[in-house]
Amino acid sequence: MTRYGPMYGPDITFLGVDRCDLTDPASFEGADVVILGAPFDGGTSHRPGARFGPSAMRQACYLAHDGSRPSLALRVDGLRDLTVRDAGDVECFSGDLETSIRDIEAAVHTIAAAGAIPVVLGGDHSIALPDARGVARHHGFGRVSMIHFDAHADTGDIEFGHLYGHGQPMRRLIESGAIRGDRFLQIGLRGYWPGPEVLSWMAGQNMRSYEMTEIVHRGLPECLTEAFAIALDDCDGIFLSVDIDVCDPGHAPGTGTPEPGGLSARELLDSVRRICYELPVVGLEVVEVAPPYDHADITALLGNRVVLEALSAIARRRSGEPWDPRQPLLDGR
Amino acid sequence: MTRYGPMYGPDITFLGVDRCDLTDPASFEGADVVILGAPFDGGTSHRPGARFGPSAMRQACYLAHDGSRPSLALRVDGLRDLTVRDAGDVECFSGDLETSIRDIEAAVHTIAAAGAIPVVLGGDHSIALPDARGVARHHGFGRVSMIHFDAHADTGDIEFGHLYGHGQPMRRLIESGAIRGDRFLQIGLRGYWPGPEVLSWMAGQNMRSYEMTEIVHRGLPECLTEAFAIALDDCDGIFLSVDIDVCDPGHAPGTGTPEPGGLSARELLDSVRRICYELPVVGLEVVEVAPPYDHADITALLGNRVVLEALSAIARRRSGEPWDPRQPLLDGR
Amino acid sequence: MTRYGPMYGPDITFLGVDRCDLTDPASFEGADVVILGAPFDGGTSHRPGARFGPSAMRQACYLAHDGSRPSLALRVDGLRDLTVRDAGDVECFSGDLETSIRDIEAAVHTIAAAGAIPVVLGGDHSIALPDARGVARHHGFGRVSMIHFDAHADTGDIEFGHLYGHGQPMRRLIESGAIRGDRFLQIGLRGYWPGPEVLSWMAGQNMRSYEMTEIVHRGLPECLTEAFAIALDDCDGIFLSVDIDVCDPGHAPGTGTPEPGGLSARELLDSVRRICYELPVVGLEVVEVAPPYDHADITALLGNRVVLEALSAIARRRSGEPWDPRQPLLDGR
Amino acid sequence: MTRYGPMYGPDITFLGVDRCDLTDPASFEGADVVILGAPFDGGTSHRPGARFGPSAMRQACYLAHDGSRPSLALRVDGLRDLTVRDAGDVECFSGDLETSIRDIEAAVHTIAAAGAIPVVLGGDHSIALPDARGVARHHGFGRVSMIHFDAHADTGDIEFGHLYGHGQPMRRLIESGAIRGDRFLQIGLRGYWPGPEVLSWMAGQNMRSYEMTEIVHRGLPECLTEAFAIALDDCDGIFLSVDIDVCDPGHAPGTGTPEPGGLSARELLDSVRRICYELPVVGLEVVEVAPPYDHADITALLGNRVVLEALSAIARRRSGEPWDPRQPLLDGR
Amino acid sequence: MTRYGPMYGPDITFLGVDRCDLTDPASFEGADVVILGAPFDGGTSHRPGARFGPSAMRQACYLAHDGSRPSLALRVDGLRDLTVRDAGDVECFSGDLETSIRDIEAAVHTIAAAGAIPVVLGGDHSIALPDARGVARHHGFGRVSMIHFDAHADTGDIEFGHLYGHGQPMRRLIESGAIRGDRFLQIGLRGYWPGPEVLSWMAGQNMRSYEMTEIVHRGLPECLTEAFAIALDDCDGIFLSVDIDVCDPGHAPGTGTPEPGGLSARELLDSVRRICYELPVVGLEVVEVAPPYDHADITALLGNRVVLEALSAIARRRSGEPWDPRQPLLDGR
Amino acid sequence: MTRYGPMYGPDITFLGVDRCDLTDPASFEGADVVILGAPFDGGTSHRPGARFGPSAMRQACYLAHDGSRPSLALRVDGLRDLTVRDAGDVECFSGDLETSIRDIEAAVHTIAAAGAIPVVLGGDHSIALPDARGVARHHGFGRVSMIHFDAHADTGDIEFGHLYGHGQPMRRLIESGAIRGDRFLQIGLRGYWPGPEVLSWMAGQNMRSYEMTEIVHRGLPECLTEAFAIALDDCDGIFLSVDIDVCDPGHAPGTGTPEPGGLSARELLDSVRRICYELPVVGLEVVEVAPPYDHADITALLGNRVVLEALSAIARRRSGEPWDPRQPLLDGR
Repeated sequence: MTRYGPMYGPDITFLGVDRCDLTDPASFEGADVVILGAPFDGGTSHRPGARFGPSAMRQACYLAHDGSRPSLALRVDGLRDLTVRDAGDVECFSGDLETSIRDIEAAVHTIAAAGAIPVVLGGDHSIALPDARGVARHHGFGRVSMIHFDAHADTGDIEFGHLYGHGQPMRRLIESGAIRGDRFLQIGLRGYWPGPEVLSWMAGQNMRSYEMTEIVHRGLPECLTEAFAIALDDCDGIFLSVDIDVCDPGHAPGTGTPEPGGLSARELLDSVRRICYELPVVGLEVVEVAPPYDHADITALLGNRVVLEALSAIARRRSGEPWDPRQPLLDGR
Repeated sequence: MTRYGPMYGPDITFLGVDRCDLTDPASFEGADVVILGAPFDGGTSHRPGARFGPSAMRQACYLAHDGSRPSLALRVDGLRDLTVRDAGDVECFSGDLETSIRDIEAAVHTIAAAGAIPVVLGGDHSIALPDARGVARHHGFGRVSMIHFDAHADTGDIEFGHLYGHGQPMRRLIESGAIRGDRFLQIGLRGYWPGPEVLSWMAGQNMRSYEMTEIVHRGLPECLTEAFAIALDDCDGIFLSVDIDVCDPGHAPGTGTPEPGGLSARELLDSVRRICYELPVVGLEVVEVAPPYDHADITALLGNRVVLEALSAIARRRSGEPWDPRQPLLDGR
Repeated sequence: MTRYGPMYGPDITFLGVDRCDLTDPASFEGADVVILGAPFDGGTSHRPGARFGPSAMRQACYLAHDGSRPSLALRVDGLRDLTVRDAGDVECFSGDLETSIRDIEAAVHTIAAAGAIPVVLGGDHSIALPDARGVARHHGFGRVSMIHFDAHADTGDIEFGHLYGHGQPMRRLIESGAIRGDRFLQIGLRGYWPGPEVLSWMAGQNMRSYEMTEIVHRGLPECLTEAFAIALDDCDGIFLSVDIDVCDPGHAPGTGTPEPGGLSARELLDSVRRICYELPVVGLEVVEVAPPYDHADITALLGNRVVLEALSAIARRRSGEPWDPRQPLLDGR
Repeated sequence: MTRYGPMYGPDITFLGVDRCDLTDPASFEGADVVILGAPFDGGTSHRPGARFGPSAMRQACYLAHDGSRPSLALRVDGLRDLTVRDAGDVECFSGDLETSIRDIEAAVHTIAAAGAIPVVLGGDHSIALPDARGVARHHGFGRVSMIHFDAHADTGDIEFGHLYGHGQPMRRLIESGAIRGDRFLQIGLRGYWPGPEVLSWMAGQNMRSYEMTEIVHRGLPECLTEAFAIALDDCDGIFLSVDIDVCDPGHAPGTGTPEPGGLSARELLDSVRRICYELPVVGLEVVEVAPPYDHADITALLGNRVVLEALSAIARRRSGEPWDPRQPLLDGR
Repeated sequence: MTRYGPMYGPDITFLGVDRCDLTDPASFEGADVVILGAPFDGGTSHRPGARFGPSAMRQACYLAHDGSRPSLALRVDGLRDLTVRDAGDVECFSGDLETSIRDIEAAVHTIAAAGAIPVVLGGDHSIALPDARGVARHHGFGRVSMIHFDAHADTGDIEFGHLYGHGQPMRRLIESGAIRGDRFLQIGLRGYWPGPEVLSWMAGQNMRSYEMTEIVHRGLPECLTEAFAIALDDCDGIFLSVDIDVCDPGHAPGTGTPEPGGLSARELLDSVRRICYELPVVGLEVVEVAPPYDHADITALLGNRVVLEALSAIARRRSGEPWDPRQPLLDGR
Repeated sequence: MTRYGPMYGPDITFLGVDRCDLTDPASFEGADVVILGAPFDGGTSHRPGARFGPSAMRQACYLAHDGSRPSLALRVDGLRDLTVRDAGDVECFSGDLETSIRDIEAAVHTIAAAGAIPVVLGGDHSIALPDARGVARHHGFGRVSMIHFDAHADTGDIEFGHLYGHGQPMRRLIESGAIRGDRFLQIGLRGYWPGPEVLSWMAGQNMRSYEMTEIVHRGLPECLTEAFAIALDDCDGIFLSVDIDVCDPGHAPGTGTPEPGGLSARELLDSVRRICYELPVVGLEVVEVAPPYDHADITALLGNRVVLEALSAIARRRSGEPWDPRQPLLDGR
């Protein structure tokens, strides 16, 4: 077996789930979910460090690394009720963006083609391009809707003289046809970027972007419900992209381009749970966790919990058992 | 006087209140409240450091350490309108859990037996067992209800080969008969522990546990009101146990087992105020403040404010003056 | 040109806007806004460090320092649609409070007299006295209302034997007649200071102070609406004073006297936007950002965004175009 | 195989060397060295955190975790030229010192009895008792000399009411007969502990302790040479105990009881190299690395390098090739 | 008794020594040493925070705060063999330098006049002026030599428009006649300040300044021996001023103006020991410990050890017993 | 003027020296030294962050940013006695190593061709290739000797599938003929990389590498003297490459691949001074300062001081005045 394993640090897996090797199809045959690290941060426009995101998110947990996590909220075990494998990292030399995203796309496509949901641990947001395109190559260009949690639209054109980077993947995805602009739902945008020209391009693609002011005034649940309807219209699956900076810097300081005024960690977890329970998610990425700027591992832990929340909700959805968020954990009787 | 004083650092008291010595009954005669440090963290399953919680919570304040704190919200001085003493620390060698909890229980019982409310500064949550049992030994086994703020149920059975530790105190309390399972109210649970077997045991005890998803969907005030009714049914007093990790890691990073998606600091303070104003609290503990993982003392400060909020509300309750949370501090007229 | 420039570090301007020199009126003629640093922290009663606030807030941003920040929420560019200049710092030797505040007042008055809005970057809150008085000297004593975001009332009398300091500026302002007590609106107070005597003096001035408990129970929007009505009554302009500690320490750890249970960053930004869009703001200060206690620059970044949010809203107000916070950024069509 | 694996975090090995299982003798048959984690910090008298020492020291390296580390200084590969295995951790519940040290001693003895050198990664210094006694049980009580690098003598008697803890192991070792007092060499002592009574007991045991003042004035190399002669006199092997706090806090901040004025990291590494090259080392421990207090992993990295330096020197010694520290790495010809 | 006590935090004393009150002469009658806090940092030209130096240095120790510290190196107990009292802090409002230094000088003089050695815990180096002048007022202007450890000469003239501040005290001391310029010995200077004009003034005062390059090339012991001869010539006592930034930033990061290339902590401790053992020290200050910039308390701990090393050496000197630094702590026989 | 300016943060210059623009030759005509930022960290094999090195080193100083720094040791002003300009940064997108080093080489060559000494602030060590090659293109391939301070040889071949990166520049330099292998002097190597194959290649190039063990045993001054002789043999100039990780992690924690056991900051500064005073330096780089891992700016400050020490020594060398390191700064007479 020629598993590449980890790019940084020891060869560990996500909370102890079993390893697989993407060059050995038998090792992930029948998997529901394959976790993949994309330790690339050469695309960051400011603070780097997201290369350590895969390692940090795989191990940020105070419980035993035993490949089991029974969810209190959903009453399923996302790591056991699903068949989950960890394929290790794609080798991503941060000084070579183009090779890195090429190799990530190949790995993601391999996973999707095997019928599994790829869960990609970034890395900076440059990887959204290969992540979502790798999934779309399997499910069909234009057949997968995108739900994108982020403070930033990531739809820039050319930056630092380059087409690729963590500020441009969404534009490249739409341009490539992998994702339709009118099935691109952005949640949590805020701040001072991009400017009118880029916004105008986005409008031309019929993107639907929820800036935080709208979210605050209408309520996040209502916005999500509206977005879900668009996402489900004439689509075969959902790709969920979570940039951890969608959360307020107080909840996620360990990131490259923090923007005050974001979601709380609770709101993000609740949203991810709803999406993965209510919608047919076919791919997931959690990006921009940058451990050098983290404190007491709280951002890495949040990234870990986003993954677990997603897997738990997918497991619950697949179980066929209905679920009511108002139901008590224990009702005292 | 043979006051043991502090286990770590200089011999200080909570914000400068007067000292007392548990071996000298005269020193705390007539006290309404006696503060006690339990600097034990040998029961932690992950990050230690809570041994420095008592010292940190006693001094985390930017105001003069003068034994006075007039509450803006409640318009009483919890440190002066009540008679408050600080008994220093129980000697708690972290390498010997059983001796430590034995000695803590004796100290807490001494305080309760003198008619005072013990306010125990932890320390890890292992101390809930001696804290609540020490109170129950005075008020009667089964006569004190528990309101327990925590991300974790702390109802494990045997861990690392031991019956005692910070993941098991609530089970031992119920097994011992000190607290009735059906008067055990848990607020803020979330995450991925415990698993089905332990939950089944809890259900068998008729515990009432509010997981965060239920809290978010029903609203915290409604959940609290419901819990208060259970707690008050056929009981003589309330023990309030606050594990600081009930708060989101963004608000309380300085703790051993942080779990994203928790209460805000504001929600915790509002809850503690309501509990101590509306219910007959007979004991209180604030645990799992771990200064080595704190930043800029914000978690220690939160622990300090939980104590002050509780004492202020107790003072207001005892004053007999009604209180309306909507009333302006200054009404401009 | 004899521009004093920066007291600490290199001579930079707020996100790259053009420099001006207060001794050279031509350099800021026609400016809508002049930014001024007041790097003074000799008035702090506890943690110092706010002297580095001006430098930190000027540069805390991951985008290019190009003097442009198009707001996603408001669809204006606060740095370009307005004429904004940065006058550098007032020399503020922290060991000499009285000289420092005298010189700050002169600088602020120079800006106001030129018809520009002074935006003062603190520094500790001692500077509220010269900031607001400098503005009032131009607009008329008693003609400017104060909206004051803070955990603390800052209305102490004599502390450490001195009349001036970061706990007393609001009292001195009212005593001096610069601001009327009954046009003084305080938002976000909480905690354990001041005591009854000072509160009684405040009541005697007919101040209107919104403690956090009232805010939580009535809702921040309702409180703001009520406060706006008072502020607008018989006044010519609004001075907005933002002490960053109005936010919860989880959102703003980098400050001198953090008090748990505050506003979220989101709430502060939403409030500042409303104030600057709905009211005639004539002066602004952002104070108590203390970088030595910050983590990953999140507090400095919040201070920076408070300024940008204010300038964007002022620009939108001046544009005459109405604005609806519920309107989508991009509506998907 | 029932390998216990890690107590905290993922199941990794020291820089990727192969695993073994102490319950399966075949898995470490023929090993020269077996690495063992002792993640215990219940014996600390002050700052805890050393429980994370084993995990931190195993992975603190920026090179690939490939089980190979060719030494530039010694021109051998300590991880490949020797047969090195990692047995994982002993389960060490920090709340139960006595059980923990009992189990550590059994594990160390198992390793020594198999003919391998145990390399124990602590954990606090309480583990010196089981570490050295486990070795002595195999080589014979009184037949192994101790070279002990530390700021502290660790010869206390009863502390916090207990015989065991990180301040007393050396006394217990001598009392038990495992190590002779007159074959106990202490290097690097300094500061203000212990007092006359304990020193008197130590003198009575004929211990040889080099306080830093002597070391500075005589030179470390001369002191070491002198100590080696004593250690080699009538002994069969050397146990090397390295408490990382022997280094100056500037070089090793991540420890529990830092004492200014210690060795530099360079001096420690040079000393360890000499000891393991010149003397017949039969056991080694590196203790008191406390990651919560570390910065940028520099202390963990130093602990890692102490282990590598020792293994490299042992490999060089076993190679039979003489070594000259003045020889150029590359001589330019 | 009207002891002012502490300016910041709880009322503690240096490692638990007894309190005294400078307004009550009986409370320090017969004291050999009186410790005084000067929590002033309004004179800093860059990073503040030294106001927390007194509190940090008083408690930075992992041993019990029992007023006893037996020195391993010197075999005396500096806190018990001498009569040591702690007078608490002088109230030092950092916004008013002139009042602060006036009050410090009065306090220091009170101590010196009572026959005790004042040990002043700073605070920034502005306090050297009142510290040394307060001593000189008792022993006679020009009768006390100064040995000054620092990276900086602190002989500036007017800075930020002021005569006083942490860059000027040595000039003011010489100008005032309190200390003779030709009895002013500076050790450890380096870096890029002051410039030629100030150096020329210094030369005109016949100061003797040892820049680090000279120290490295000649050896610190030789430089000290030479300096001692000058200091002892026609003088009645020595004032020892230790600015912690004389040490390399790696050993003392927690300071306001760190300058790379300084002494090691060991070199400073060895020097302080020699000075206090060989010379008639009549006053001591340890300044510029700035806890906000410290890591893991290593700088505060170094400041604490400078005081202990000094007191131990004074005690040894007073004991009359000769001392040989090469003598073993325990000689193994 | 089209000066690119800064890649990250505000457009500042090294301690306030004048700007120049490499596209405008007049702006740096006659300059002795041109400072250039190369904010590239895409070549790092482990911790990134060195992209912020240029900004951090330009401003890490507590003195006024006035373009003047009179050296106490050398009695010249390196920023004023030489004509020094700062050209800002080369745009270095970290995701594209090859373009970045191409552009750096062009910029460095432009500076060298203008007769100035380029001083390049890294960035990771990948930039040694364009830095030294840019200089050699002007002075002649093979005519410039290299003195290279580093813990690592940086002579790897292919890593992560790439020829370029921070572990390979020295190999590429020698292969390209820019620098002769037998004029390549490496100081401070240590640790566990590279292995025998690479060492064998290095030996084949006749490199002279001083590992720390040799340095400790022979003394750094003797090693330097020997190296200088080789460097000066048949060469026209010296390129000095300082990787900050040559220092011990205690002195330089803010770096990507720290290796314990290095030089002290003092030793590095003394060496740089000697080199620039005794040898004809024609180019200089300071690399691998990674601010995200720094503490209290001590590593950035050390990088800043390396530059100043070099410029001061060059100025002293050019002054023609002899210099004796044993000469007192002030001799007391």
